[in-house]
Amino acid sequence: MSEQQRKGRVTIPTDVDVVPETLELLRRWGADAIRDCDGTDYPEELKTADAKVYATYYTTRKDNAWAKANPDEVQQCYIMTAFHTAAGGPLSIPLLKGISSELLEVNSRDDIKRWWEVMDRTTGTPLSSEAWDYDAGSGTVVIPAPEVFHDYTVSFLAYLIWDPVHMYNAVTNDWKDFEHQITFDVRQPKTRKFTMERLRRFIEDHPYVDVIRYTTFFHQFTLIFDELKREKYVDWYGYSASVSPYILERFEREAGYPFRPEFVIDQGYYNNQYRIPSREYKDFCAFQRREVAALAKEMVDLTHQMGREAMMFLGDHWIGTEPYLEEFKTIGLDAVVGSVGNGSTLRLISDIPGVRYTEGRFLPYFFPDTFHEGGDPVREARENWVTARRAILRKPIDRIGYGGYLKLACQFPEFIDYVESVCNEFRELYDRIGGAKPWCAQTVAVLNCWGRARSWGCHMVHHALYQKQNHSYAGVIEALSGAPFDVRFLSFDDLKEDPHALDGVDVLLNIGGGDTAHTGGALWEDPEISAAVKRFVWNGGGLIGVGEPSGHQYQGRYFQLSGILGVEKETGYTLGYDKYNWEEHRSHFILADAESPVDFGEGQKSIYALEGAEVLVQRDREVQLAANAYGKGRGVYLSGLPYSFENCRLLHRAILWAAHGEERIARWFSSNFRVEVHAYVDSGRFCVVNNDGAPQRTEIFRGDGSSFSLELPPGGIRWFEI
Amino acid sequence: MSEQQRKGRVTIPTDVDVVPETLELLRRWGADAIRDCDGTDYPEELKTADAKVYATYYTTRKDNAWAKANPDEVQQCYIMTAFHTAAGGPLSIPLLKGISSELLEVNSRDDIKRWWEVMDRTTGTPLSSEAWDYDAGSGTVVIPAPEVFHDYTVSFLAYLIWDPVHMYNAVTNDWKDFEHQITFDVRQPKTRKFTMERLRRFIEDHPYVDVIRYTTFFHQFTLIFDELKREKYVDWYGYSASVSPYILERFEREAGYPFRPEFVIDQGYYNNQYRIPSREYKDFCAFQRREVAALAKEMVDLTHQMGREAMMFLGDHWIGTEPYLEEFKTIGLDAVVGSVGNGSTLRLISDIPGVRYTEGRFLPYFFPDTFHEGGDPVREARENWVTARRAILRKPIDRIGYGGYLKLACQFPEFIDYVESVCNEFRELYDRIGGAKPWCAQTVAVLNCWGRARSWGCHMVHHALYQKQNHSYAGVIEALSGAPFDVRFLSFDDLKEDPHALDGVDVLLNIGGGDTAHTGGALWEDPEISAAVKRFVWNGGGLIGVGEPSGHQYQGRYFQLSGILGVEKETGYTLGYDKYNWEEHRSHFILADAESPVDFGEGQKSIYALEGAEVLVQRDREVQLAANAYGKGRGVYLSGLPYSFENCRLLHRAILWAAHGEERIARWFSSNFRVEVHAYVDSGRFCVVNNDGAPQRTEIFRGDGSSFSLELPPGGIRWFEI
Repeated sequence: MSEQQRKGRVTIPTDVDVVPETLELLRRWGADAIRDCDGTDYPEELKTADAKVYATYYTTRKDNAWAKANPDEVQQCYIMTAFHTAAGGPLSIPLLKGISSELLEVNSRDDIKRWWEVMDRTTGTPLSSEAWDYDAGSGTVVIPAPEVFHDYTVSFLAYLIWDPVHMYNAVTNDWKDFEHQITFDVRQPKTRKFTMERLRRFIEDHPYVDVIRYTTFFHQFTLIFDELKREKYVDWYGYSASVSPYILERFEREAGYPFRPEFVIDQGYYNNQYRIPSREYKDFCAFQRREVAALAKEMVDLTHQMGREAMMFLGDHWIGTEPYLEEFKTIGLDAVVGSVGNGSTLRLISDIPGVRYTEGRFLPYFFPDTFHEGGDPVREARENWVTARRAILRKPIDRIGYGGYLKLACQFPEFIDYVESVCNEFRELYDRIGGAKPWCAQTVAVLNCWGRARSWGCHMVHHALYQKQNHSYAGVIEALSGAPFDVRFLSFDDLKEDPHALDGVDVLLNIGGGDTAHTGGALWEDPEISAAVKRFVWNGGGLIGVGEPSGHQYQGRYFQLSGILGVEKETGYTLGYDKYNWEEHRSHFILADAESPVDFGEGQKSIYALEGAEVLVQRDREVQLAANAYGKGRGVYLSGLPYSFENCRLLHRAILWAAHGEERIARWFSSNFRVEVHAYVDSGRFCVVNNDGAPQRTEIFRGDGSSFSLELPPGGIRWFEI
Repeated sequence: MSEQQRKGRVTIPTDVDVVPETLELLRRWGADAIRDCDGTDYPEELKTADAKVYATYYTTRKDNAWAKANPDEVQQCYIMTAFHTAAGGPLSIPLLKGISSELLEVNSRDDIKRWWEVMDRTTGTPLSSEAWDYDAGSGTVVIPAPEVFHDYTVSFLAYLIWDPVHMYNAVTNDWKDFEHQITFDVRQPKTRKFTMERLRRFIEDHPYVDVIRYTTFFHQFTLIFDELKREKYVDWYGYSASVSPYILERFEREAGYPFRPEFVIDQGYYNNQYRIPSREYKDFCAFQRREVAALAKEMVDLTHQMGREAMMFLGDHWIGTEPYLEEFKTIGLDAVVGSVGNGSTLRLISDIPGVRYTEGRFLPYFFPDTFHEGGDPVREARENWVTARRAILRKPIDRIGYGGYLKLACQFPEFIDYVESVCNEFRELYDRIGGAKPWCAQTVAVLNCWGRARSWGCHMVHHALYQKQNHSYAGVIEALSGAPFDVRFLSFDDLKEDPHALDGVDVLLNIGGGDTAHTGGALWEDPEISAAVKRFVWNGGGLIGVGEPSGHQYQGRYFQLSGILGVEKETGYTLGYDKYNWEEHRSHFILADAESPVDFGEGQKSIYALEGAEVLVQRDREVQLAANAYGKGRGVYLSGLPYSFENCRLLHRAILWAAHGEERIARWFSSNFRVEVHAYVDSGRFCVVNNDGAPQRTEIFRGDGSSFSLELPPGGIRWFEI
């Protein structure tokens, strides 16, 4: 192992009580950077260590004196109450019922008649400002004369009087005797000025610090806790905590139309990523993006002026930075660091354009939820590494790192050993890839309402967390994160605005539930959009639909692309039509490596095949997998595809088939789907990785179709010259 | 057994080759009426038998000479072609592709530019009449300059050149050497006049006939066959074969707005019973109802003038008669006869108001599909009888009967024996009930778009046929057909037009898939409708929702009645909300007799409970059964409920619970749910029936709560005096 391979590209956490351990791990893991964390302090003794020093900088908190002196500039968020039914007589709606009063405080300082909205949800209309009052004593909105048996909600502004991430960390780790950190709004004038001074002072006061790790800029993603301090609502992409009358007035001036709370409240759905974004919400996000980028740039410029690097944590108060959109590059950041939960979240970081380097914080976090007696951090670390490694081999991050309390990790020597091997393996593969683009069998594009903005984050509600209802969709993105395809993310806006949006794309994917932002909903009523997709496939392109692709009831169809996909959903409307196409074609190319039964995860009910389509799998007369011809192109329908090695292979084959690329299957290919091949033709190398926890035998095919047998140990990786 | 119990209330079929057998069965089954069938002739020898004689009269067919002489008055129907994609250049759409050319012939005799419609389904707009042409030679519509990658359909008129039921009978029974009977349109002037003369002649020529059994009046329900003579589309309630330019011009004059083919075509869904009916479709049906009733009355009046009874077969050409609506009574029919497939179809007949008597044709039909070597007609008959008996005990039909080829039945002596016992049992129970109304524990109302018009026929596509997607909904109606509840059928129009629509109702039911006519779809956006239901429950009423009750995305909710039901559906929009309410309350009143696991049939995915609701059953974090309080009322959610003895009991308990009627459970009640009690308090009698094929022990509770033990043989019935 070379010197280079033994050191570098690794960041470790520290604290005042683990100085010797930190120095030991610097050596063993070959770490070249040390960081502090929320709830830790950087030890004096390590200020001169042979490593870069990262300092976590909390732009929006850890200065309660300021926050308390400027309560009008505490960060605000929009909240909608529950539905309340008027059953006769006045209706009282308690604003904070079901919400932690330690987290939020009603903002009645600003003009509530302008910034709040009382909605009649039965009619979908806001009440006039004379039709309701706020009783600050009881914290309730009173509607003196509501319509009987109508339902009402109140949309109101509240202050974040406890930073949601600080609250989460405190509750999770059962912190005692500490002050709740208040989130202040850096975008507002007094705090903005203060923040620039505070940052300058921080940098001056921390001369040993090389990297300012912004955690993060200005606005927390939506995260609300209930009265029992349990998570109540979360949206990692949510903008509802990025508001204030100050900002909204500026938005109004730019947008040229009046702001309404409903733009953010969105019927209580808060524009989460399943909602088809309205024009107003897209306008608002674009405004925030521009404003956040401009102000963040000021901070980054100051950081650079003072001789430090600026790194952004992709999480917490990251809202408005949107790393995949144009404004992000203008911020001038040196690096982005983010948490790696799987392959998708790895690519979410590593694919970010416009920074010098990216860093992934690997799991498990050194917190007591894993590092306790009986815990198995090695298992978690191994799963995390093997899952992420597929994605690293497609597009590496530049550094890896860990977070939490180092003291906890040191109590698990096997974990220390395992991470040592991970660090070495990471450095080796990073060097061998050498910045080369891996060989790709096809170019695929994921089409949804968000496009590039939510690259690799489709279906993600809260980072890599499992959700029963979306794992069969997120599984496709996870499979793609480590697969030999060039992956693009396209929005319906792209499709509409750019006639060349589909140039170079071999296969389009539309993945998710009907009438969601992931499949397009009513946007399919736009002839330009439907025609663009039909043209693409008719002329030879491929389409893979998963779940309820193009699902939206309109003009005689539920699947608007049923003509391409060869399947339709029975919603009752077509029960009168006899269905005769149920015979399975199990010898199809797509199923060649599939073991039975294929795991479609949540799957779908009530899908049937149209005449002419080939049913590959149906269960109890519900189609799970079908293939269809459309003009010169092809469509594939999948009811769902949770992530597994086997399903990665099935998707791989579906993509090749949809692209008429069947003959390309035996290039840079492993006969055993538990093993994958990544080829870097420009670097003259390829590697073979065993993603499984057991030894695997396989036949490996090179780019010219020649092959050889290979056996790999559990999780093993082998490099070859071309 | 009394003389009365040994004879009467039974109709049997006959044919020229089974005269002695007919006479034997008249005696053994105690039949007092004899009928002919499609494909049989009435034997000379039986014209003087001691029985009423029914003659099947085909108003619309069996006179090809007339049909051929008047091709312009052959019955027409609206048909929509498949979707065709314009991929560049002119687009040709073959009209009859996928449709039996023996069944339909394109009508290009009438003004096709007025009566046809070429639709751009991508934009949802009709093409101008200049934008397309019809090439009669190839039977195609040509669009010279379509929009590229738009989809097109053609809606056109076609003649029914083979009566669909005649075709079905001929294909099913493999008839040889016969002429296809053409359906003529009695509503048109020449045929109308001809028909009245033909009817008079028929009655004159059949002096031995007592009952003219109309099969039926004028318009066949929608029934289309494909090129392989397989059923392609069926809708027992469908009006698409009730059209002609003659009728449509009259409709236009009455409605005051121009007719469009799309009113009937309905995007290719043909206004099937899952579609929320448009105002235009409701107008059209109402017009047809009035016209059909007026013309049918003329025929019935003539029948009466000539000294015969008029009986209507509830099937085949029954469209427009609508036995549950006001116009029906004005026809003046003596009787209705219909096929009994189960309890729901029994009630569909027996509940018809405005006729002197009703008759049910029981299964199996004496056709070779059942009566062949190895067939088990006794099993089919037993299932049919035991299932229908529950419903008869709630509201008896006045007569039972059989149809088909008697010769086939005579080859199965055990079947002849079994039917003899059924006839005796039917006469006994009919006499004992003596017209009394059975005791009802509660009054329930089924709320959907169709209301009374589709009493007992909710979810029915083609009479009693099973459909995977609706059996869990139809199961509720089937359970109600034999349950001790007063059952009403209410439409949303009733609810909107009549403030007293819910007076006297204890529990409201909303059953079916979201955005269908059975649950209401966008009608829930009407504040009057939603408020009416909320008021009803809030003030103490009960609501039971099955499947996706009130399912329609609007203003922050998918289930518009989620506040009452205590559950909501996860469509992706609320994935960000944490759900904590999963604990099951298995000791709830509703589950007291349930054996595990409860069979919810197709069930539902992704249903979760709101705070405060009681989850009774959830599976893998998907709620199947929940109970909730709302004001003084109660809501119950069920994901589905296919018909079974056990599920009848579960529904029974759910209704009592929803109505706060738990204490009424032990009245006229059997502890064993395979056994049911029907009490006729006014007649001073009650009976206990074993619905099961095995002997059953049970504890029977009288109306005063006193009880006794009882054992019943398989399928047994016991009568008691009160």
